[in-house]
Amino acid sequence: MSHRHTDLLEEAITACRTREHFSPFPDRPGKDDASLAAIDEARAAYEGMLGGSFPLDQPSAGELPGDEVSPYTGEALDIRYPAPDIDAMFDASRRARAIWSRVEPERRVDLCLEMVHRLHDRWYELAHANQHTTGQSFSMSCIGSGTNALDRGIEAVAYAAEAMRRVPTTGHWEKDFGRTTVSLHKRYRILPRGTAVVITCASFPTWNAYPALFANLATGNPVVIKPHPTSVLTMAMATQVAQQVLREEGLPTELVQLAVDTTDAPIAKDLIAHPDCRIVDFTGSPAFGGWIEANAHPAIAFTETAGVNTVVLAGTEDLQATAAAIATSLGLFTAQMCTSVQNIYLPGDGVDTPDGKVSAEDAIASIVAAVDDIAANPRRAAGVMGAVQSPHTVGLINNLEAEVTGRGRVARPAGTYEHPEFPEARTCTPSIVAVDPSARELFGEERFGPISFAITCADADDALDQAIRDVRASGAIASHVYATDRDYLDRAADAYLDAGASLTMNVTGPMPLNFAAAYSDYHVTGLSPAGNACLTDEAFIAGRFRVAQVREPSA
Amino acid sequence: MSHRHTDLLEEAITACRTREHFSPFPDRPGKDDASLAAIDEARAAYEGMLGGSFPLDQPSAGELPGDEVSPYTGEALDIRYPAPDIDAMFDASRRARAIWSRVEPERRVDLCLEMVHRLHDRWYELAHANQHTTGQSFSMSCIGSGTNALDRGIEAVAYAAEAMRRVPTTGHWEKDFGRTTVSLHKRYRILPRGTAVVITCASFPTWNAYPALFANLATGNPVVIKPHPTSVLTMAMATQVAQQVLREEGLPTELVQLAVDTTDAPIAKDLIAHPDCRIVDFTGSPAFGGWIEANAHPAIAFTETAGVNTVVLAGTEDLQATAAAIATSLGLFTAQMCTSVQNIYLPGDGVDTPDGKVSAEDAIASIVAAVDDIAANPRRAAGVMGAVQSPHTVGLINNLEAEVTGRGRVARPAGTYEHPEFPEARTCTPSIVAVDPSARELFGEERFGPISFAITCADADDALDQAIRDVRASGAIASHVYATDRDYLDRAADAYLDAGASLTMNVTGPMPLNFAAAYSDYHVTGLSPAGNACLTDEAFIAGRFRVAQVREPSA
Repeated sequence: MSHRHTDLLEEAITACRTREHFSPFPDRPGKDDASLAAIDEARAAYEGMLGGSFPLDQPSAGELPGDEVSPYTGEALDIRYPAPDIDAMFDASRRARAIWSRVEPERRVDLCLEMVHRLHDRWYELAHANQHTTGQSFSMSCIGSGTNALDRGIEAVAYAAEAMRRVPTTGHWEKDFGRTTVSLHKRYRILPRGTAVVITCASFPTWNAYPALFANLATGNPVVIKPHPTSVLTMAMATQVAQQVLREEGLPTELVQLAVDTTDAPIAKDLIAHPDCRIVDFTGSPAFGGWIEANAHPAIAFTETAGVNTVVLAGTEDLQATAAAIATSLGLFTAQMCTSVQNIYLPGDGVDTPDGKVSAEDAIASIVAAVDDIAANPRRAAGVMGAVQSPHTVGLINNLEAEVTGRGRVARPAGTYEHPEFPEARTCTPSIVAVDPSARELFGEERFGPISFAITCADADDALDQAIRDVRASGAIASHVYATDRDYLDRAADAYLDAGASLTMNVTGPMPLNFAAAYSDYHVTGLSPAGNACLTDEAFIAGRFRVAQVREPSA
Repeated sequence: MSHRHTDLLEEAITACRTREHFSPFPDRPGKDDASLAAIDEARAAYEGMLGGSFPLDQPSAGELPGDEVSPYTGEALDIRYPAPDIDAMFDASRRARAIWSRVEPERRVDLCLEMVHRLHDRWYELAHANQHTTGQSFSMSCIGSGTNALDRGIEAVAYAAEAMRRVPTTGHWEKDFGRTTVSLHKRYRILPRGTAVVITCASFPTWNAYPALFANLATGNPVVIKPHPTSVLTMAMATQVAQQVLREEGLPTELVQLAVDTTDAPIAKDLIAHPDCRIVDFTGSPAFGGWIEANAHPAIAFTETAGVNTVVLAGTEDLQATAAAIATSLGLFTAQMCTSVQNIYLPGDGVDTPDGKVSAEDAIASIVAAVDDIAANPRRAAGVMGAVQSPHTVGLINNLEAEVTGRGRVARPAGTYEHPEFPEARTCTPSIVAVDPSARELFGEERFGPISFAITCADADDALDQAIRDVRASGAIASHVYATDRDYLDRAADAYLDAGASLTMNVTGPMPLNFAAAYSDYHVTGLSPAGNACLTDEAFIAGRFRVAQVREPSA
């Protein structure tokens, strides 16, 4: 059987090696008339799903009303999904695996890439669904949750394909034992580990789901996707797309199933505890991620949770550009990203700039002004900030601002902005709290949502030390240092690497600090409480399949 | 700095790819005068260590008398090892890691290969030590625990070297954001996971210790070796050799440390629970291995334990050769190997042979006769069986033979043989119990030592089904099928692979069934209770290091 996506596969494999930019898909939604019409049509398709049943080809126990409410309209999506029958799903999964595990690896890989293409075919439709479940802007839904997420999926397929290719299918072995030469013919077979449970988060499901889904499928493992109950639709659509490709190929659709639950009756632990569960991929809170890492056995767990993302602002060639870069990270998707900046450490004796030292207070004021700049322009705010996925997040911010009293100063209170298209949108602009290092109980761990801290330390060295202390304690996914002194930058790089964290230095300009590039950036080191897995490295693939062999005398 | 072992490294990498036979070292001890003199000299060196202190370059809390008693002489080795100061050892380990992690990966790899060579320089001396701690014959100590074990060590280094080479050290990334091109320079650094605790077994420590030691060291992790308290000396010598190479290079000797305990006061759990423990490599019982897999978090665990090794004897072109092959596996090192055969399933309607059906009873008699053949010749018995490491093992056999009453028939009772060189040797010849499948409580799990079961099933299909049932329940490390019908062999291969087990078919002749070849055989699939790790595949390496990155605007 010829494969459809061999060129794409080879290009992706090459990109993983060179770490250069690569993507087979357009980056941004089109602005031409045809694209605008397609976006409208996709909106209609999305709206057509509201209030209906979402059928999937898998065992179910009737229907389950979803918990989804659009952060933009405040209205329930009112979509009914298949209610999970967990035992029946795992049974179907096991039967499907017996077939899938004998499909040759290169064909599995090709079918994964076909699924990627089919997901891209529904790009705009998925973007509308993503927007109204996660709160992301339409543009971010197309880019971050569309193209970038598909790229991470392709990247995982490329790593899986390479890892499986490195296992030979046969070998001839010959050795003398005394006067006799023993000749053995050996066959090696790649065996999947078993059913994988992929648990996705509420605010950015596709970006982690696609790599996990395809890493599992490519290596022969069936997948049960357990979406966050308030953010199901994109995962249901992804399941539908995967099942469609499988059905066309005469393969069991139960290789990809959706297990929906509700906030009141969560089932993640039941899925993990099922004796057939062999792999868990998780994105979500550090608390549950840590629990999974410790308790998933005999399943292996791949987690991405959250950490304290730090910026050390020791010096800069352009304070305004730096303040703008930080402000964008504080605001981007209302800081509901695993790469959103939280803590900004400043030297109390001033930030180095071409115009001399700028006081920490003035530097903070620059960041506040840069945030205000975004927040004051509703069109821009809508594009950057989008909406807040969960009402709970807004509550956290109000609580925090109360907590601050006596321990710091609210340099910029959270607010709202008027969404130009959706007047009912749940919006929230960043809160910035100015503190000193003694207020660590406020900033020492992850605060989800648009909450940030400007921490004035003794000097630049102290700022670095304080940041590293938090990174060591709570982990980090994205870390930044701004400085003009090369020695300082080198020390900072070593300090972050020694703490198990990656570092970005002196980045300003149009690339958001939050951006992690498929094929190029190792996302999450796996060495900190922010997660044990990396998108994507060989360790993300290696344990998902095993090698068994058959040896016999050579004919 | 030029590396000493680049040719060896490339040859080993190639062998891992082609799966062909490879070894840089002689297979068997020499028989020429010079070799015999060297063996004598090594014996004297071994004897010189008895009754003395074994100093190592590491923190210690005084001395600890070892629990070692030679299975050949019955005399205590009376060697005193450094008593472990666990916190001080982990502290030293962490300090050593800070230095070692910055040594470039290719140099770490080269130093591992230098250690391999230095271990080989002490080949005969290690073999004497191995013989008198494990009970292996001198010849097996040279081959299985010497050359073959070093080869598995080199294999792990080769996999580690390849995995690290596949991580680029830098990358240039360029992408348009709107009208601006963003150019980033990226550096990627391999970071070790952290201190590895390598727990070795009593009867075959080097074969698993070397791969674990070198996989850890090559990827930047310091190692603490925790040997079985009754089988310490070879691990102490390996630690000494590694420390010597490190010292010569001006590197911290605490990168490899030895943590000795006693049977009465075991410390394995304390080592695993230490907050700095990040990797556990374990060889030993399925019970403790399972506990480690479930409880090592946040450390990752690589285990090799034991399973039920099965032989299905459906048919054979040469019953005598097959009986001899099985008998050798039952006797080899008194069945104290993870690859020793335990359960032999026979068709009740007869074994297919060129002379027609041979009854199960007659086939069992052939195996018994083949065992007797070995046991009756003390010189041969000594070479094949060696001695029994632990007196406990002999007790297990006596208990079993009592258990059998009413549930089966002792087809061959265990016995002893007179060792020609060591009259005090603790010897034990194989016990073979004839049962039918209803006696599963006797044979359904691993019975350590020279205990085997000849299980007469309904027919060849039933024999295969019964074997697969045990493999699924208890795991397997080595599995064998003898049959003359190709269809049956194909079905058997699929059945074993589906059960997560590798299979050897129709092997007779001078290669022992127990033999697993470095660079060629994937040892342990990782899919069964017999262990989660494979010697050696990419999964054995991948999690031991992580990749972090530093990105900044291109100059």
